Amino acid sequence: MIVDNLKPPYYAVIFTTTLTDDIEGYLETAERMEELAKNQKGYLGIESARAEIGITVSYWESLEAITQWKNNIEHTEARNLGREKWYKKYQLRICKVEREYGFEQ
Amino acid sequence: MIVDNLKPPYYAVIFTTTLTDDIEGYLETAERMEELAKNQKGYLGIESARAEIGITVSYWESLEAITQWKNNIEHTEARNLGREKWYKKYQLRICKVEREYGFEQ
Repeated sequence: MIVDNLKPPYYAVIFTTTLTDDIEGYLETAERMEELAKNQKGYLGIESARAEIGITVSYWESLEAITQWKNNIEHTEARNLGREKWYKKYQLRICKVEREYGFEQ
Repeated sequence: MIVDNLKPPYYAVIFTTTLTDDIEGYLETAERMEELAKNQKGYLGIESARAEIGITVSYWESLEAITQWKNNIEHTEARNLGREKWYKKYQLRICKVEREYGFEQ
């Protein structure tokens, strides 16, 4: 789903990944993390697509909200498992969204 | 491809899309735009994935570089065609990348 109801400035976390061959449990955990994120303070929305690489962009009210989500215990455990098992490589970027444009037919 | 050789601060354009049923010419144009972008001044890299939605993130040295790319004539024509034909909906966000972390197994 495209997130289209936000007003800059706010923050985006761009998480780009490639997976290993051992993705047992990955999908369930990714879904659980999305559900958990939605209940975090300052959560604004999430967009996600996977083809050769996966890109997940989550949107947040503030840097503090991102730090709180990072420090969530279940999220920390999932992240550790991700590094041990599922992720071959990832890049995580914390960005300030300054401007935004939308189009709909 | 994951882009992993950049040093903040720099800029990201997050372009999230859904397509219409009429995607004739879309893929060729998308590939051509990627090729064109790579030759623009201030271009740093691009990451892209499409499933239910498409997410393309392009990275740039400065806001000026993003404006120049926006004003490129062939890009402008492709964008107009995109709004007429291919894009059902899109959201475009201009962001300043403030921090970045990487992981590789």
